[in-house]
Amino acid sequence: MGSVVAEITVSLDGFVAGPNDSPELGLGEGGEQLHEWVFGLKSWREPHGLEGGEEGRDADLVQNAIDRTGAIIVGRRMFDNARGWGDEPPFRKPVFVLTHEPREPVEKSGTTFTFVNGIESALEQAQSAAGDRDIGIGGGAQTIQQYLAAGHLDELLLHVVPLLLGGGVRLFDGVGGDVKLEQAEVIASPAVTHLRFRIAPG
Amino acid sequence: MGSVVAEITVSLDGFVAGPNDSPELGLGEGGEQLHEWVFGLKSWREPHGLEGGEEGRDADLVQNAIDRTGAIIVGRRMFDNARGWGDEPPFRKPVFVLTHEPREPVEKSGTTFTFVNGIESALEQAQSAAGDRDIGIGGGAQTIQQYLAAGHLDELLLHVVPLLLGGGVRLFDGVGGDVKLEQAEVIASPAVTHLRFRIAPG
Repeated sequence: MGSVVAEITVSLDGFVAGPNDSPELGLGEGGEQLHEWVFGLKSWREPHGLEGGEEGRDADLVQNAIDRTGAIIVGRRMFDNARGWGDEPPFRKPVFVLTHEPREPVEKSGTTFTFVNGIESALEQAQSAAGDRDIGIGGGAQTIQQYLAAGHLDELLLHVVPLLLGGGVRLFDGVGGDVKLEQAEVIASPAVTHLRFRIAPG
Repeated sequence: MGSVVAEITVSLDGFVAGPNDSPELGLGEGGEQLHEWVFGLKSWREPHGLEGGEEGRDADLVQNAIDRTGAIIVGRRMFDNARGWGDEPPFRKPVFVLTHEPREPVEKSGTTFTFVNGIESALEQAQSAAGDRDIGIGGGAQTIQQYLAAGHLDELLLHVVPLLLGGGVRLFDGVGGDVKLEQAEVIASPAVTHLRFRIAPG
């Protein structure tokens, strides 16, 4: 079975979205800046149907995360704020959306969104869909916090951008204390520092 | 004139002290763990009157910060929580303590603590004392926030440790937005990642 990996971009002051995130504002005020590091990368542009882009360490890291991931879990708020990733979601693998109001699965251009109530059930279904590959916990903050607090995360991959948002949605809020992290990898480029941590079994 | 450099150790979840920091608890519950990366380093142990210790990149970085710093500014809360650094403070250079209740300077084993009301006045006095060398803004969080918000910081050096404190004193709280950071250096070791940022003039 693969690892359970939470991967998310975070500002230096710890926010994964700016103030007032919503379907209208997406990642909130200033939140789009969080992902500027990724928009120019070939490995991000390709699955988004865009041509060209940079290669290199950042692009390789993104490609590697895509390749090793067999299924993805996201929270309902993230799904809503991204407006379901439009008509052509970039994932092209099973995505499980946590929600208290399950509904029929949605299939769009090779990506199936399955709506699941409960983090345990979502994890089981994702593991079954992913086979030997990893489960990506894509966010948002609450979803990652839930999996972290429940002891289900094996790895945390943070893309830290040199940005102070000053407010918004904090990645770490009310979790910690008994979580043991081990620094596994640091990759730096001018626009972003990638920090990979292994999480010791609790 | 030297640069104004804020340097501080921060947990991955953004805290520079645990809950309930005080003269009795020092850095608060769990806060001592923040500095475990530094206690074994030769360049930290020497000014603290301790023998031995590790050399290497972390130790060099600490030594470099010591060498380039001509004067230090700290907040009153930090001074109190450290209980004035006892009878033999490690600094051996002028330290300016921000306080609304100035009192007579204190001299202890080569370190002079001068109590100053106001961040501008402290900076002027520190610059005058430091000559061509840097001014170190040593913390705590509020002091760094004040200098950051006032546009006085040239550089931010964070020692990020793979630790979730879950609560305490946040380094960044209510600052950001218009602060422009530029990633200048990343040095990683298993116990800590050093992130150095230049701050663009506002």
